[in-house]
Amino acid sequence: MRIFRQALNPEEIVKITGGELLKRHDTLLNHVADPQAADEHSVLFLDNENYLPAVLSSSAGLIIARHKYKSELLNHSANLIFTENAYQSVLKLVNFWLETEDKDFVTSIHPAAVIAPDVILPEHCKIGAYAVIEAGTTLGDYTIIDPFCYIGQNCRLGEHCRLYAKVTLYENTEIGNNVIIHSGCVIGADGFGYLLLEGRQQKIPQIGQVIIHDNVEIGANTTIDRGTIGPTIIGEGTKIDNLVQIGHNCVIGKHCILCAQVGLAGSTTLGDYVCLAGQVGVADHLTIGEGAVVGAQSGVSNHLPAGGKYFGYPARDAMLMKRIMAVENDLPELIKFMHKLQKDRKQE
Amino acid sequence: MRIFRQALNPEEIVKITGGELLKRHDTLLNHVADPQAADEHSVLFLDNENYLPAVLSSSAGLIIARHKYKSELLNHSANLIFTENAYQSVLKLVNFWLETEDKDFVTSIHPAAVIAPDVILPEHCKIGAYAVIEAGTTLGDYTIIDPFCYIGQNCRLGEHCRLYAKVTLYENTEIGNNVIIHSGCVIGADGFGYLLLEGRQQKIPQIGQVIIHDNVEIGANTTIDRGTIGPTIIGEGTKIDNLVQIGHNCVIGKHCILCAQVGLAGSTTLGDYVCLAGQVGVADHLTIGEGAVVGAQSGVSNHLPAGGKYFGYPARDAMLMKRIMAVENDLPELIKFMHKLQKDRKQE
Amino acid sequence: MRIFRQALNPEEIVKITGGELLKRHDTLLNHVADPQAADEHSVLFLDNENYLPAVLSSSAGLIIARHKYKSELLNHSANLIFTENAYQSVLKLVNFWLETEDKDFVTSIHPAAVIAPDVILPEHCKIGAYAVIEAGTTLGDYTIIDPFCYIGQNCRLGEHCRLYAKVTLYENTEIGNNVIIHSGCVIGADGFGYLLLEGRQQKIPQIGQVIIHDNVEIGANTTIDRGTIGPTIIGEGTKIDNLVQIGHNCVIGKHCILCAQVGLAGSTTLGDYVCLAGQVGVADHLTIGEGAVVGAQSGVSNHLPAGGKYFGYPARDAMLMKRIMAVENDLPELIKFMHKLQKDRKQE
Repeated sequence: MRIFRQALNPEEIVKITGGELLKRHDTLLNHVADPQAADEHSVLFLDNENYLPAVLSSSAGLIIARHKYKSELLNHSANLIFTENAYQSVLKLVNFWLETEDKDFVTSIHPAAVIAPDVILPEHCKIGAYAVIEAGTTLGDYTIIDPFCYIGQNCRLGEHCRLYAKVTLYENTEIGNNVIIHSGCVIGADGFGYLLLEGRQQKIPQIGQVIIHDNVEIGANTTIDRGTIGPTIIGEGTKIDNLVQIGHNCVIGKHCILCAQVGLAGSTTLGDYVCLAGQVGVADHLTIGEGAVVGAQSGVSNHLPAGGKYFGYPARDAMLMKRIMAVENDLPELIKFMHKLQKDRKQE
Repeated sequence: MRIFRQALNPEEIVKITGGELLKRHDTLLNHVADPQAADEHSVLFLDNENYLPAVLSSSAGLIIARHKYKSELLNHSANLIFTENAYQSVLKLVNFWLETEDKDFVTSIHPAAVIAPDVILPEHCKIGAYAVIEAGTTLGDYTIIDPFCYIGQNCRLGEHCRLYAKVTLYENTEIGNNVIIHSGCVIGADGFGYLLLEGRQQKIPQIGQVIIHDNVEIGANTTIDRGTIGPTIIGEGTKIDNLVQIGHNCVIGKHCILCAQVGLAGSTTLGDYVCLAGQVGVADHLTIGEGAVVGAQSGVSNHLPAGGKYFGYPARDAMLMKRIMAVENDLPELIKFMHKLQKDRKQE
Repeated sequence: MRIFRQALNPEEIVKITGGELLKRHDTLLNHVADPQAADEHSVLFLDNENYLPAVLSSSAGLIIARHKYKSELLNHSANLIFTENAYQSVLKLVNFWLETEDKDFVTSIHPAAVIAPDVILPEHCKIGAYAVIEAGTTLGDYTIIDPFCYIGQNCRLGEHCRLYAKVTLYENTEIGNNVIIHSGCVIGADGFGYLLLEGRQQKIPQIGQVIIHDNVEIGANTTIDRGTIGPTIIGEGTKIDNLVQIGHNCVIGKHCILCAQVGLAGSTTLGDYVCLAGQVGVADHLTIGEGAVVGAQSGVSNHLPAGGKYFGYPARDAMLMKRIMAVENDLPELIKFMHKLQKDRKQE
């Protein structure tokens, strides 16, 4: 668990979280913990009946709980804050801590970073050890480049971005503001395109780029290929999990959710607010409409209309798919009956 | 989009692409663009009716189009080239540009590369910042090793290879000529082999290697494990997409296509020209015959004969699988009817 | 194949492997090979009829074979050792060689490693070129950190660990003893958690950690996310293959096997000795009981009881699933028959 530098007393915390404070004793809180690991300096939250016994037997210094758990908690020695939604209250507290630590922004450029002479660094930034930034690239203010990041030629990064250790951007990649990219991502590698000519797979040159808009987050070891000619585009506010593959010339809308190990073949378009669960695969040149939700491991082989829920292999209307799956278990029994019927008929 | 250093005029371009030039005005072209992004220096191509309106309203300096679009384009102010196949013409042009830039090959070895004393570098090569090359390794002429590549002991790389940033080769890996490996690939990690002895998973030593033949391309973050004793082999001209997993002792034929997120368990053999679509999984110790094509997300659990098309989970003849999928939608309705039949029979 | 530094004669080898030696001539052996690649210094093993012809025509210096192949091998000029289980005998030999080479442990810290001043290095360790170790981290004795590893703040690593090139540990990661992590792994990146508020995906702070217990091995490019608040835990002796995704707050038991490209969504719990075959996906907040085995590509969407075998999409009892798959091939034919029945009924 993460210990924050600025410890707070219960009175300071209730100003951040809102709610009603029941002060029991003086203490300083500096982190949020699991019940088993909690000590005098820990904040816990209680939103859900299942966790009540663990919270009751914990040694936390402060418990933030829903109003409805008031009577159960009154005998606990911890300081108590009661709110409408304990989880959202604790999120407010953690975000306060995170923002406080971010305010200590101290520009630092590690001497072992290799930065091309024409790269103009912004007033505030951090460049870690062994980062490499090639010629023609620009960085926005307050952007953090961790160790071993490789940023190719002529990339453009916005403000307040964070590239964790070992992110790779191929040349000409464009990234907006407030973009977070986790370790091991590869953005802008060649799209997968070949023509079989005279018995050999001949490479189709990949000379497009990747454009990532504001407020996108991308998980570890995900790969997003450059377009063949035009760009591959990730829309504003979209969140992408680990080990996802996005093929060349895909266009992803705004505020989409792509869970881990999703794969999109080339030139596929997702509307805004599309949600693809884990390991979903989408074939090439398809369109998935705004707000569509596709269940885990589904295989999308046709266009999907906006707003629907889809599921299965191939992906179909989720209600229909559930009915199909429900009858599958009866299939062996019923097929046996049908074979009997067939036999009877032949004998007639 | 990629801007090339050598700008060409329309007369120079038609010599490269072939076809018939309709010269309208002098201009210099240095890149291929999407219609929306095109300017005076852009080349567009038109092969497909759907793109006609976008091309007509663009500001491109040169349009390469199929003969059949002649009448529609005659009013456009751009220079025009008409050919049999606009896409192949534009490929010729891009390959000309790429080859021209490659001819500027200037050997450079970054001072922050760590190269073991016994490594003999070829006359022409590029070694990027923070590349590490261990003892006993040899590199072929014109090979490019980008920053952060790690090449273990006793590896052998051929000529004209390109390892993009952060490729990892474990010891004893052998790579032919003209091989391209994208960022984040890990070649030669231990195969996944354990024996459950006395309640513990005991590691089986992995002392084989990986051999990659000429003209192979491997996508970002793909992993190819070393053989347990013998080698894992990737055949000549085979192309592998991103995030693919190839298990220990697999033998992949020539000119195969393995799309993104394909997974092969250990000791599986693919004939030449096999094509596995995205997210296909293949079990261990299987053989897929020459030219077989396996549809996306299929699960291959049996040997597959050469030349067929397969699909599904488990993978079956694609025609049969399509018929099965077609009837699945009717299953809930028909099962209801069958239950009724059964009930009637019992009552009889 | 890997050549070991300490060459052994047949008499020395039989002391390691056990069994009965038939000495033919003096030679020194220093590696295990495939039959095709074998020479005077190669050891082969023969456990399986299929490999008999290849072994007979090889030029190996020593063949370790099961007793039952004695008569077939007597005419071969190689030295021969006959044992109960040739494969296990050869494992003993390879482990002897590997342990001998490990005994040469020479502490070395590359001058280009960047190690925070407060990191206390153990007496024996190897830190490769361009490794970065941040403040507050501790390393156990005999641990090897290869080039380009990034170890964030306040990590704790045990003894005899091996981090291959380019492993990334985010801050606060804890790792036990004898843990092997292959290249490209990312341990401790943020879990994938957002709340859709006012039309935007708002990030839920991820302030937990990852804890990996003793004797775990993790394959190349695998990702394990930190817990949202509490930890993500990998139990003792568990083995994880390449390109696996483990979501935030998962708890994996002891001695489990997770094959390549498996994906676990958040907060899922696996008992001890669970085995998930390749490309299996498991939804969030599920429990898979001790010793359960789940077949390749299955989609687990419900809790699975201990000890069973499961398979399919969704994962079901493996025997039932096999029966369902067996009847699927007959579906098109039978559905046709049923439609005929329905038609007849309507006509009646």
